[in-house]
Amino acid sequence: MQAHQLKALLEQVKSGDIGIDEAIEKLRHLPFEDLGFACIDHHRQIRRGFPEVIFCPGKTTEQIIKIFESLAERGNNVLATRADKETFDALAETNKFPQARYEELARAIVLEQKKTQGSKTVLPIVTAGTADLPVAAEAKVTAEIMGQQTELICDVGVAGLHRLLGHLPKLQNANVVIVVAGMEGALASVVGGLVSCPVIAVPTSVGYGSAFEGLSALLTMVNSCAAGVTVVNIDNGFSAAVTATLINKKIEANSK
Amino acid sequence: MQAHQLKALLEQVKSGDIGIDEAIEKLRHLPFEDLGFACIDHHRQIRRGFPEVIFCPGKTTEQIIKIFESLAERGNNVLATRADKETFDALAETNKFPQARYEELARAIVLEQKKTQGSKTVLPIVTAGTADLPVAAEAKVTAEIMGQQTELICDVGVAGLHRLLGHLPKLQNANVVIVVAGMEGALASVVGGLVSCPVIAVPTSVGYGSAFEGLSALLTMVNSCAAGVTVVNIDNGFSAAVTATLINKKIEANSK
Amino acid sequence: MQAHQLKALLEQVKSGDIGIDEAIEKLRHLPFEDLGFACIDHHRQIRRGFPEVIFCPGKTTEQIIKIFESLAERGNNVLATRADKETFDALAETNKFPQARYEELARAIVLEQKKTQGSKTVLPIVTAGTADLPVAAEAKVTAEIMGQQTELICDVGVAGLHRLLGHLPKLQNANVVIVVAGMEGALASVVGGLVSCPVIAVPTSVGYGSAFEGLSALLTMVNSCAAGVTVVNIDNGFSAAVTATLINKKIEANSK
Amino acid sequence: MQAHQLKALLEQVKSGDIGIDEAIEKLRHLPFEDLGFACIDHHRQIRRGFPEVIFCPGKTTEQIIKIFESLAERGNNVLATRADKETFDALAETNKFPQARYEELARAIVLEQKKTQGSKTVLPIVTAGTADLPVAAEAKVTAEIMGQQTELICDVGVAGLHRLLGHLPKLQNANVVIVVAGMEGALASVVGGLVSCPVIAVPTSVGYGSAFEGLSALLTMVNSCAAGVTVVNIDNGFSAAVTATLINKKIEANSK
Amino acid sequence: MQAHQLKALLEQVKSGDIGIDEAIEKLRHLPFEDLGFACIDHHRQIRRGFPEVIFCPGKTTEQIIKIFESLAERGNNVLATRADKETFDALAETNKFPQARYEELARAIVLEQKKTQGSKTVLPIVTAGTADLPVAAEAKVTAEIMGQQTELICDVGVAGLHRLLGHLPKLQNANVVIVVAGMEGALASVVGGLVSCPVIAVPTSVGYGSAFEGLSALLTMVNSCAAGVTVVNIDNGFSAAVTATLINKKIEANSK
Amino acid sequence: MQAHQLKALLEQVKSGDIGIDEAIEKLRHLPFEDLGFACIDHHRQIRRGFPEVIFCPGKTTEQIIKIFESLAERGNNVLATRADKETFDALAETNKFPQARYEELARAIVLEQKKTQGSKTVLPIVTAGTADLPVAAEAKVTAEIMGQQTELICDVGVAGLHRLLGHLPKLQNANVVIVVAGMEGALASVVGGLVSCPVIAVPTSVGYGSAFEGLSALLTMVNSCAAGVTVVNIDNGFSAAVTATLINKKIEANSK
Amino acid sequence: MQAHQLKALLEQVKSGDIGIDEAIEKLRHLPFEDLGFACIDHHRQIRRGFPEVIFCPGKTTEQIIKIFESLAERGNNVLATRADKETFDALAETNKFPQARYEELARAIVLEQKKTQGSKTVLPIVTAGTADLPVAAEAKVTAEIMGQQTELICDVGVAGLHRLLGHLPKLQNANVVIVVAGMEGALASVVGGLVSCPVIAVPTSVGYGSAFEGLSALLTMVNSCAAGVTVVNIDNGFSAAVTATLINKKIEANSK
Amino acid sequence: MQAHQLKALLEQVKSGDIGIDEAIEKLRHLPFEDLGFACIDHHRQIRRGFPEVIFCPGKTTEQIIKIFESLAERGNNVLATRADKETFDALAETNKFPQARYEELARAIVLEQKKTQGSKTVLPIVTAGTADLPVAAEAKVTAEIMGQQTELICDVGVAGLHRLLGHLPKLQNANVVIVVAGMEGALASVVGGLVSCPVIAVPTSVGYGSAFEGLSALLTMVNSCAAGVTVVNIDNGFSAAVTATLINKKIEANSK
Repeated sequence: MQAHQLKALLEQVKSGDIGIDEAIEKLRHLPFEDLGFACIDHHRQIRRGFPEVIFCPGKTTEQIIKIFESLAERGNNVLATRADKETFDALAETNKFPQARYEELARAIVLEQKKTQGSKTVLPIVTAGTADLPVAAEAKVTAEIMGQQTELICDVGVAGLHRLLGHLPKLQNANVVIVVAGMEGALASVVGGLVSCPVIAVPTSVGYGSAFEGLSALLTMVNSCAAGVTVVNIDNGFSAAVTATLINKKIEANSK
Repeated sequence: MQAHQLKALLEQVKSGDIGIDEAIEKLRHLPFEDLGFACIDHHRQIRRGFPEVIFCPGKTTEQIIKIFESLAERGNNVLATRADKETFDALAETNKFPQARYEELARAIVLEQKKTQGSKTVLPIVTAGTADLPVAAEAKVTAEIMGQQTELICDVGVAGLHRLLGHLPKLQNANVVIVVAGMEGALASVVGGLVSCPVIAVPTSVGYGSAFEGLSALLTMVNSCAAGVTVVNIDNGFSAAVTATLINKKIEANSK
Repeated sequence: MQAHQLKALLEQVKSGDIGIDEAIEKLRHLPFEDLGFACIDHHRQIRRGFPEVIFCPGKTTEQIIKIFESLAERGNNVLATRADKETFDALAETNKFPQARYEELARAIVLEQKKTQGSKTVLPIVTAGTADLPVAAEAKVTAEIMGQQTELICDVGVAGLHRLLGHLPKLQNANVVIVVAGMEGALASVVGGLVSCPVIAVPTSVGYGSAFEGLSALLTMVNSCAAGVTVVNIDNGFSAAVTATLINKKIEANSK
Repeated sequence: MQAHQLKALLEQVKSGDIGIDEAIEKLRHLPFEDLGFACIDHHRQIRRGFPEVIFCPGKTTEQIIKIFESLAERGNNVLATRADKETFDALAETNKFPQARYEELARAIVLEQKKTQGSKTVLPIVTAGTADLPVAAEAKVTAEIMGQQTELICDVGVAGLHRLLGHLPKLQNANVVIVVAGMEGALASVVGGLVSCPVIAVPTSVGYGSAFEGLSALLTMVNSCAAGVTVVNIDNGFSAAVTATLINKKIEANSK
Repeated sequence: MQAHQLKALLEQVKSGDIGIDEAIEKLRHLPFEDLGFACIDHHRQIRRGFPEVIFCPGKTTEQIIKIFESLAERGNNVLATRADKETFDALAETNKFPQARYEELARAIVLEQKKTQGSKTVLPIVTAGTADLPVAAEAKVTAEIMGQQTELICDVGVAGLHRLLGHLPKLQNANVVIVVAGMEGALASVVGGLVSCPVIAVPTSVGYGSAFEGLSALLTMVNSCAAGVTVVNIDNGFSAAVTATLINKKIEANSK
Repeated sequence: MQAHQLKALLEQVKSGDIGIDEAIEKLRHLPFEDLGFACIDHHRQIRRGFPEVIFCPGKTTEQIIKIFESLAERGNNVLATRADKETFDALAETNKFPQARYEELARAIVLEQKKTQGSKTVLPIVTAGTADLPVAAEAKVTAEIMGQQTELICDVGVAGLHRLLGHLPKLQNANVVIVVAGMEGALASVVGGLVSCPVIAVPTSVGYGSAFEGLSALLTMVNSCAAGVTVVNIDNGFSAAVTATLINKKIEANSK
Repeated sequence: MQAHQLKALLEQVKSGDIGIDEAIEKLRHLPFEDLGFACIDHHRQIRRGFPEVIFCPGKTTEQIIKIFESLAERGNNVLATRADKETFDALAETNKFPQARYEELARAIVLEQKKTQGSKTVLPIVTAGTADLPVAAEAKVTAEIMGQQTELICDVGVAGLHRLLGHLPKLQNANVVIVVAGMEGALASVVGGLVSCPVIAVPTSVGYGSAFEGLSALLTMVNSCAAGVTVVNIDNGFSAAVTATLINKKIEANSK
Repeated sequence: MQAHQLKALLEQVKSGDIGIDEAIEKLRHLPFEDLGFACIDHHRQIRRGFPEVIFCPGKTTEQIIKIFESLAERGNNVLATRADKETFDALAETNKFPQARYEELARAIVLEQKKTQGSKTVLPIVTAGTADLPVAAEAKVTAEIMGQQTELICDVGVAGLHRLLGHLPKLQNANVVIVVAGMEGALASVVGGLVSCPVIAVPTSVGYGSAFEGLSALLTMVNSCAAGVTVVNIDNGFSAAVTATLINKKIEANSK
């Protein structure tokens, strides 16, 4: 419930168009939802340019299609993450979203119905190895549908520093950097020591043995001695991209 | 090796004051250190306003005093974190830093020798409980010596939501928020859902039993389903403050 | 062995109808079983209205059908949890239980042969996300076959508090609430802080990466700083429902 | 903000005693706090008879005394848990609370300023071993200040079942039972199988080696195959007592 | 190298039939193998009645058949544990071991070529639930091929003590008892408290959620406060049976 | 309640000396305790020669002395494990148990009031390193007060096999062997492969770093591929000794 | 940037063919890449004889073939580890590498295009059990393509020491030994105590239950009390072989 | 038993000076010890130059002094690791080892009674931070008493790569490098990627929070994607130094 609605209601009270009990009822039965939504709406304004998002695991194909339809019909961009190819095929068979595309590497379904304003700066997404690409791709797709220009810098793990150092200028020009690494996850600390902007570290479940499905990389990154490194969940390219976009939008918004 | 040094060297080559082989030797034997330092210096320029920092655990009092002296004599601000009162007393007895003060709650020694330009916005540091205060205080001291205005919002854990909701406007006005919580660490997700800016989550070792010295809060925060939440190490108020400051400086810098 | 049986036996001893040695033998050879069963029977009286339950994992289809038949023929309600559709199909093919139905979401086979007295109050089963539904559905099916009225309140995770707050009246009217949440599991603490009745928290294995198959949610819930929150095993909707029903039956029984 | 306050405000609007903008301001600036507090207050009504509680760890003696004073002056009962004897002595030296007493085993400070209505039934608190007594004592002190009659049943661990079985009638008469056990924590399952009421299980950090500070007992209890067993944090006698009291008050309230 | 061989060698040395250097060579090149084998042989004498054993996981069907053949041709009994039905079928197709049989529940291939002397006492193998049967069956098959009489006592978990107590006499008559339990694993402690003989506890991976593939049961059993309980690896019915047999053979051997 | 007591009671019923209701009352009010105790007593007969035991951690000095006195006055041997020297001194000051002695290495108080019949065979207690001695000493003291002859074989860790092999005959003559090892705990498997009797493995918390307070040794021992190895809790020399004594008494009892 | 390039540039500066600013620009914009590559090249010289390596997991068949082609066309030897048979078949179908072969046990694709100089000494690769063979085979293939002579010593686990001792001379003659073991992993310590050269220990994921996918063996090996034992990741036969080769090449290089 | 002893014995047999049975007896009763010792002696020859070592934790001061005396009187060098200053003082008070010195940082007692031949190359010991120094110092003291020249390269953690790169030539000239790092432990991978010799990685318990006493660094190092990196136990500077010395002695021995 926004200010003007509240004002109208109170004016109706004042004018007697609506009884006090009825007004109370309206105010009481929805205080939380409406104020809540108001809050969320205001807050979505700020987050303008964000897509609607469906996290697919644990949902049936039918549920996903239904949610997809309900989100898409508001005209928004829609992003479905961790989606199987089969889910996309089922969605495609509905013939309702000819613009929807499947990003295979990122395992994402993307529907861009309106263009977001592009970022002025480039968001580097750095990976330690080729096997980290799916997570990096999820970050890339997510950041791009939110308007970020991105650049993927692949396979620059710390066991071959020269490969990383060659990309230093791009990293040092960024407002924020995403680092995606599995196994020992040391890349986040090294990048954190080379740049002066925040680094969002994404541990991946890449590796075997004592990588323990990403636990090792997570611990490494959380223990990073480089200031400015913060961490998201294992394999959570989506969350890293959202955070990086939040930061960059604030920076670029202020630079207007 | 900085640009002007390199230029001077090349001019000596051009003028013949120095032989090509000698020049090569100079360039070859120090490429990394010097270019490295150059890189770091450039990068410290960007980070201007940052104090010199000593992480005290594992260092003897003698080592800390020696490092403190060497850092302080360059005229910079100095911050020693996780410092015992005894360490400060020993430092005070040297009578060399009458301006140095001990922040008891934060367990920090602070020497402000030059004033940093203050931030335009306020950085909220939110804690779930009173016992999280030492970590929040470390974040506060760190952020302030780097020029941030801060506001401590205490004891607003999720078991009493109304306490948190009363502070919502302050949180929604911030460019970045630090959330400090132990035990179940749920506060980060709740705050993350209420604001549209990045949230830096600091798990604390507060709690007992299955809190497992902060592991429970760490896992909760890393698993946060609220977008925009990233995590630092358990009890690492310092790192949260540095990251928050990095972000806010970028935002405010661009708003000039 | 109940009082009247014991009395009869002693009277036989007194009257000499039975020798002392024979009496000793009777008392000695069954003290545990019989007293045990007596105890259990009495105790089942109290638990009247509870179905017979089969936990399917680790049992072959043949074993399940055999146990199902033996339980069903006593005329009781039967609930088979964690049952595959294949198991149900095999059971259906026996044509012995035309009333048995398969609850797909809950993965449960339900045979209601007699109606349990319905509860007067509603048991809210709250989930953080859509992916928590199967566990909530198991709780729902279990509670309902034990006579509870239930209401599923879905997808009200803490990252969007307004969704939860809109359901507050229902939660505050309940005698006990079940909260089902994976990922960071913070919902239990938030609900615990909003209601004045006991909260049974069910961590789920929903999530990925550092959710560690529900460990993160389990730790969060066990560490809850909200009083009145207790926890069952990961994904154990069944146990939560049984406990909630035990509590509610005691409350409603006393209100008669 | 309660209904009658809202009504009064709307009547003022209607009568013109207060302008619409002023009314909006009142409604807008406090929706959360006030509705929040209202909610909490209402909710505290329900929880009437609960003491004010201070969890001492992580707080300085000064902080504890200050909080204690502020809570005590409202005339409520006050309970300070995990309190050192030194803290109590410091409190005693203030000479402000001559009625306050220190429960050594429970490590609790208790100030009973008004008598709570006693429960009609007895809450059994069962421990596996003598070393679990401090946790059981915390549960006992907590339950008693909330009006519960309690009975401590000690040292009845599963390695000597006959000791437990002798107390069966007391357990079977209870509305809820608290079981406190460290080491392998098996007692909760055994009790859960013998009674028909809810069992609140408290794992303790008693034990050594692979007891891992209570982790083993926690896992055992969470995995309990006995229906009706729910678990609180390691060593959390306080939380078990609050939950047990919540349940019993609901049952006894309804029996009036 | 056995005594008579050594004697013969030394006699050859004495008689000069063999040179000292040649003797040294013979002694040197095989000290370990031969003395080793001698030692092992002696030791196998003691262990007489033990089958040859193949642990199948990680071996190809071809490897298993080859090892099986080589062991079987010495005329010994052979036991292949953790064997797939497919492996048995492949073995059966060789038509070399018509006596070999597949124990489905135990997943074992058994070839009894000579009868072992039977034990005089019965080895009880107790399980907490039906799902623990495969592990118990492995223990049963293993103990039986080594000559033990066994009795399976199933589904007597601690949540229904009366079921266990009814079997007490059998347990109290045994020389050693095997207890197989998953989930919370409490059965081992309870049995340990009721008998005066050693209890071999086998944690199983039965359970879900925080059972953590048997870790919970393992910790419970290792922490057992009942004296005389020792533990083997999760699901290791084989090892429990071997240990129980070792103990019982020693006891019965001495009673001859 | 033993047979003769039960018989007497029934005879009183028969003769009319006691009314049926009174008899029922006697039987009912103590069915479990008495039958329980009967069972336990019978069982203690079997365990004749076992001392009364006090596990000191978590008990106050006052509690320990009180329990000690109550146990000692029945004339039994008493063993207090994990006892501080201070506790012994306090006990000694009571001047009640001049025979009680303190075993410093084992941290045990021992009161031998009657001599147990000695074992015919020697129980070897093998340790990997000098630092494992306290645990081995606890096992030794425990086994000896139960009548076992023991021999300590120290510092024969697997990194120097020749030291172990020199003791092989003693190990191969034993009925059961206790192996005490920390760090990597490999000694249990090696001994298990060299002997044909059961091996009780005691992991110790000796070691540092990834020894994780004995977890590493525990896992090693539980995973032992040598048949006949079973495991007790970390540092639990007491339990190993009790189990070893149980086994050896059975063997030697039968050999009479 | 290599020496001759740098020289050429400086000569251009000297001759005035290129301005100082332009030279600075050239030097500044590529210091890291070029010096980096130079460094790497130099370093590859030292590592001469090493194959190009592809770690297949996480890469698509298409990616693997493409990388394989690009590496192979430089004429180098190529090793693809953890490769499926399907991947090899797809590679074979390209008909481009008739010499490439698939090592089934090692799951490796090997292309030897030029012969590496063979080692003078033999590298023993010791395994505890048959199931450890795939990891040992990976080590063997890797070491051989780098020119090492190897000898596989299989199934010499510590539960049968005599089998190991028979191979002692081969182990004592080696410059470095690889030990591959799962389950309790004790073999590394035993071998470490018998030889005077470095031992590279490879824990494997062989085992079940508390082997925890190799964690138990990893901890055992890291805790080894035998000097000279170092550890690589679980199942990482490749890394063990590379390290062993690095060591042996240094030793043999110096012996020339 | 060495060759010449065996020869003598056989000659006595041949000459009849000793009967065959007596010879058998001699050979039989000591096969393991003697062959074992022989093996060990031979092996100590190879390890010549190694000190006698006492690992102090878990040993009393009296034990340490006694062992020290017994080792020292053979004229060897002695190294006591993890020794308290108090232990050294007690040793010094015996006045028996005036040459013994206490290395405070390394917590080691060193007695050099004979000079070991110095290494030709320098062993770099690299640490990430100042707090890693004690572990590095233990490595240094250990390596030096075994004759290695060492160089400590401190505080070159990956968050400031330029500091490390400045030391590259020293690292690239070494035969083997020791890397000591706590927190995220990333330094080992970075160094491993820059050198072509083996790297011995020592995780330290330096750090806090999710460093989990060195577990995080251990996992990072074990997961290292840089070939040639192997790992020792947390804080085990001693073991790293022994391994590095073993490797370097082999390399330098061969270069003679």
